[in-house]
Amino acid sequence: MGKLTVVGIGPGDYDNMTVRADRVLRECQVIVGYHVYVDLVKDRYPDKEFLTTPMTREADRCRMALDAARSGKNVAMVCSGDSGVYGMAGLVYQLRGGDAEPEISVVPGLTAACSGAAVLGAPLTHDFAVISLSDRLTPWDKIEARLEAAARADLSIVLYNPASKGRPDYLRRACGILLRTPPEDRPCGVVRNIGRPGEQGTVMSLAELREFEADMFCTVFIGNSQTANIGGKMVTPRGYRNV
Amino acid sequence: MGKLTVVGIGPGDYDNMTVRADRVLRECQVIVGYHVYVDLVKDRYPDKEFLTTPMTREADRCRMALDAARSGKNVAMVCSGDSGVYGMAGLVYQLRGGDAEPEISVVPGLTAACSGAAVLGAPLTHDFAVISLSDRLTPWDKIEARLEAAARADLSIVLYNPASKGRPDYLRRACGILLRTPPEDRPCGVVRNIGRPGEQGTVMSLAELREFEADMFCTVFIGNSQTANIGGKMVTPRGYRNV
Repeated sequence: MGKLTVVGIGPGDYDNMTVRADRVLRECQVIVGYHVYVDLVKDRYPDKEFLTTPMTREADRCRMALDAARSGKNVAMVCSGDSGVYGMAGLVYQLRGGDAEPEISVVPGLTAACSGAAVLGAPLTHDFAVISLSDRLTPWDKIEARLEAAARADLSIVLYNPASKGRPDYLRRACGILLRTPPEDRPCGVVRNIGRPGEQGTVMSLAELREFEADMFCTVFIGNSQTANIGGKMVTPRGYRNV
Repeated sequence: MGKLTVVGIGPGDYDNMTVRADRVLRECQVIVGYHVYVDLVKDRYPDKEFLTTPMTREADRCRMALDAARSGKNVAMVCSGDSGVYGMAGLVYQLRGGDAEPEISVVPGLTAACSGAAVLGAPLTHDFAVISLSDRLTPWDKIEARLEAAARADLSIVLYNPASKGRPDYLRRACGILLRTPPEDRPCGVVRNIGRPGEQGTVMSLAELREFEADMFCTVFIGNSQTANIGGKMVTPRGYRNV
């Protein structure tokens, strides 16, 4: 019986991968993943067997990885960011059959909340919520309720999947909901292509964010009531005295 | 003029550090930090100048790091977990004087939400909130409002600083607030000593969590309405169909 390790590779570049993720990918025999993520690691680990599936075929991808492990292979399944945050770790556990099945382990990676925050400055120094705007698997009214609750509780908010081709206006809709609570000048930020060529962070107001044309390569940050723009950086204070 | 890099070293072991964090620590001249975190890296980077301060002297620590950079040195300030999540990155930006000051950059690291989740299984596969129970810098009524809002919005919740010597009963108080919304059998988990000797993850119910004796080395996870205990692992489904 082989084993299956679900590996978060971070935002995409080798630099932001953990030592452990790198070692697991060097030692495995098979790398499974969404083809875009496999392309990110292929050149560095060229002697592996690669198995890929397209987007929206997540269950097939996990079954493929489990099958390869059942056949006796040492399998790594790659996820961008963290393997546990909107990643495949949960689905692999759901699809695993029981105790006679391959051993599963999860190797965490840098999620976009953390890697994107570092580009903008320090927007997540205090309590925050991570919310995906994708309604492919979640009803929109649930997303809306979470946005509203997080804003009212004065949490900083990170938005994953702020837009895609089929949902070009979701960020605008989300900002409309958020603007029921924080004011238009609330500091916000967008990071595009984190850890990849063309990485760019932009700090702006919530009113500007409403008009921003995000795409699927963006991660969005909304500050809490204390967040400030300090010299172009988005900074949420922890509240230390004597500063 | 030197430069200051605020480095998240992850939970504590070299394995969970990023390639970039390791490179910054190898290349710097001075390592600054809370003495416990400096002790975690001292042996691996022995030829550095080390500057430490005790706990609760965060502003002094950042000023010390900025002063070392002003004196022309290449300075790395280490934070456990992520440098941006309850870390020092925000305070460094607040204390930096302006454009004539040392250049600052932030190197993200694995925060306990991600590294702890991987030990328990996959509790954060969907939207979640990160909330600290420390009321040293935040009024308790604000913490209470955030707990209640997150539970009502059906977010998974990660609790940082669930207890300390001076606050032995805060986790029990937090569970009392949470139990106004989710039921007593809601799957929860505690991870102790993430990435360090004695690492241990335990899955339990919310009622059991209320009686759990946490300490400052614990990170706590509360599931959302879909979270399940699958063979001893805490798993929050994303909602994929055909599973």
